Amino acid sequence: MDIIEIIAKKRDGRVLNKQEIDYFIDQYVKGNVKDYHASALLMAIYLKGMNHSETVALTNAMMHSGKIIDLSKIKGIKVDKHSTGGVGDKTSIALVPLVAASGAKIAMMSGRGLGHTGGTLDKLEAIPGMKVSLSEETFKHQIAKIGMAITGQTSDMVPADKKLYALRDVTATIDVIPLIASSIMSKKLASGTDAIFLDVKMGSGAFMKTFPDAEQLAKTLVRIGKAFKRDTRALITNMREPLGFAVGNILEVKEVIATLKGHGPSDFTELCLVSAAIMLIQAKLAKNISSAYALAEKQLKNGKAFQKFKEWIKAQGGDTTYLDAPEKFKTAKNVITLTAKKSGYIEEITALTIGEAAMHLGAGRLSVSDKIDYTAGIILKKKVGDHVKKGEPLCEVYTNKKDYQSILKDIGRAFKIVSWEIRKPEIAIKYIK
Amino acid sequence: MDIIEIIAKKRDGRVLNKQEIDYFIDQYVKGNVKDYHASALLMAIYLKGMNHSETVALTNAMMHSGKIIDLSKIKGIKVDKHSTGGVGDKTSIALVPLVAASGAKIAMMSGRGLGHTGGTLDKLEAIPGMKVSLSEETFKHQIAKIGMAITGQTSDMVPADKKLYALRDVTATIDVIPLIASSIMSKKLASGTDAIFLDVKMGSGAFMKTFPDAEQLAKTLVRIGKAFKRDTRALITNMREPLGFAVGNILEVKEVIATLKGHGPSDFTELCLVSAAIMLIQAKLAKNISSAYALAEKQLKNGKAFQKFKEWIKAQGGDTTYLDAPEKFKTAKNVITLTAKKSGYIEEITALTIGEAAMHLGAGRLSVSDKIDYTAGIILKKKVGDHVKKGEPLCEVYTNKKDYQSILKDIGRAFKIVSWEIRKPEIAIKYIK
Repeated sequence: MDIIEIIAKKRDGRVLNKQEIDYFIDQYVKGNVKDYHASALLMAIYLKGMNHSETVALTNAMMHSGKIIDLSKIKGIKVDKHSTGGVGDKTSIALVPLVAASGAKIAMMSGRGLGHTGGTLDKLEAIPGMKVSLSEETFKHQIAKIGMAITGQTSDMVPADKKLYALRDVTATIDVIPLIASSIMSKKLASGTDAIFLDVKMGSGAFMKTFPDAEQLAKTLVRIGKAFKRDTRALITNMREPLGFAVGNILEVKEVIATLKGHGPSDFTELCLVSAAIMLIQAKLAKNISSAYALAEKQLKNGKAFQKFKEWIKAQGGDTTYLDAPEKFKTAKNVITLTAKKSGYIEEITALTIGEAAMHLGAGRLSVSDKIDYTAGIILKKKVGDHVKKGEPLCEVYTNKKDYQSILKDIGRAFKIVSWEIRKPEIAIKYIK
Repeated sequence: MDIIEIIAKKRDGRVLNKQEIDYFIDQYVKGNVKDYHASALLMAIYLKGMNHSETVALTNAMMHSGKIIDLSKIKGIKVDKHSTGGVGDKTSIALVPLVAASGAKIAMMSGRGLGHTGGTLDKLEAIPGMKVSLSEETFKHQIAKIGMAITGQTSDMVPADKKLYALRDVTATIDVIPLIASSIMSKKLASGTDAIFLDVKMGSGAFMKTFPDAEQLAKTLVRIGKAFKRDTRALITNMREPLGFAVGNILEVKEVIATLKGHGPSDFTELCLVSAAIMLIQAKLAKNISSAYALAEKQLKNGKAFQKFKEWIKAQGGDTTYLDAPEKFKTAKNVITLTAKKSGYIEEITALTIGEAAMHLGAGRLSVSDKIDYTAGIILKKKVGDHVKKGEPLCEVYTNKKDYQSILKDIGRAFKIVSWEIRKPEIAIKYIK
């Protein structure tokens, strides 16, 4: 086997076989295949694509490049959830206790944020005391005991993806479906759950900007999952505007608390309930979407979802007094209200612009070594479809930075106001199973 | 300027501007742009191509990455010659003294062989005492004095090409026209001559296997040369069968001696005369091909070409007694005659097969650190179009290796014998200026 021949084969648009893909990943992790070989191959894959069997083989090779978690000793169907990432996407933090409160077991390994999309682990760490690096034993024990856990992936899992992702990031080979799909699914499969639910975001704030791209990614992910005999389902959801009102770590945690207490933003609440419904079907706790949805909604209304949330945060060391009294959370020094320059209907709140602005305010990382300011962020006062009067607040901006003027301008530009009525967008666009 | 954006731009099929190409080459030579960046960009260039202005910009950036030779103090028009490489291609060694004997000044920087194509410098070193690493001063002085010199490129010239070529070799990005053309022309332009003659080989033994590819490369090379205001011309020549009879270093030098004495193989002699004619026009020593051809032919017949050859070899330290008595050259221990298994006409002698066989016999290098056996090689006894009787010799094989049986089989397979008459191929296929 010769890596140069493998590169040439993909360069010429031919299909790589399992042996060639296994060789590439194995030798790359061992360091015999160099970064310069891998980046040439990644670019060839980017431009020539990969078919289903190649994508499955790549997923399989990456999945087996490190440790695979065995959850079989935990009773019941274990479900995992993954979001392709968006602006204001705090969904996992509300969704997982909601589903667990309904009786399902959730084993979730999550990631950190980079660029304009925040990471679930970073948001969780905004809660004082919260631990997000559980040992494998603690992780399993907690799922068995309280039905849920969210932790970071351990360093010995899927090393091929870590190495390849870092390389893709610096060689302009990130945003192509076979590489995105194999990266996501290798991690999900290695974490050992029986079922996988995928929230595929679509719009300016997401990897996938358009419906055809989002649909193709969702279908690819589901097809890979099925090749590994896992119940895999996907929901394409709207990421043209930020999710809910809050963008930024503490602000989003507070929004999760409000939502689990039953008074969250309607789009975010709806996304949690629809997602929970699908996961409850995967966990075989409901037969159809409407009964599953009703089951999840009940846990919100009867307070059990919030109780499960507190139980979970406590189990991972978080200070639950913050959950009962969210006003205890720190606030940024500067809170600036942006107002509408004209009256009309909100046609667009560009998610990408809001996400990048939040990052520049301190809520996210430009590079992996950046420190996050948990208090920084944006609270939207209007959503797409809302009417606004000239001078009314569009959003509040939270930051400890002094030179925020140009960021405010960017945020202002994210709001498009028109004179005609705008329909409220649907949050859940398409269910793929 | 950001290398990731440059990679993404070419990946998306957009045209890179001069600033972006300059940045890439400059930062790559400095080590700030890494091999993994460069290999992703090379693959994107391979698959998306480069237009004329990009190829010129790349050539220019590489040419200026190191030292540029200034030949302006030497009187007259200085001409350089380059061959894209083939099997049995000893042309420069005969051609340069032939042209110099006709009154032109030749300043040639040549390369070593790798793979199945031999290098001019290696062949010259088969002459005892011959020096091929002249200092810049010696190089210029010799051209001024005897009208010609052939040397290796100094290490401080075109470092970008050295680095990129090594990377292309291991990332399957060798054989694509903008990269081949910019590599060739950056070196030729940096060596500072007024005119450049390019022998573009076509056929199984060459980079360019087909006429359309060879023509496109030739046109690209000529167009780049013109962009730099150099008189640049190209000749597409046949490399379906090896050039002349001899393949292998000492064997080829002996064939050069015979040719300069007026009794060389007809295809090789013709190639030297046609090439010389074009170079004499470039040197403004003749007005048209027929008078230039006659001028060159005269130097062969009156012995002046051979005299210039001896003068040149002596100037670079070579032992000229070998030229007067070629029987002094060492011979390989084993000389095996391969005979025809049937009677008929030679339809093909696959140049690639012969070149690779010669390499395995010891005449070439598989990797840059391999040592060459100057005595190894093959002497063809028949050429395409010749008639052969069963049992008659097809070629002689020269080697010091013991395990040559499988190589003999390969050589045998290179000869295709058919029952119908075959026309002798033309050596010079197309002149492009």
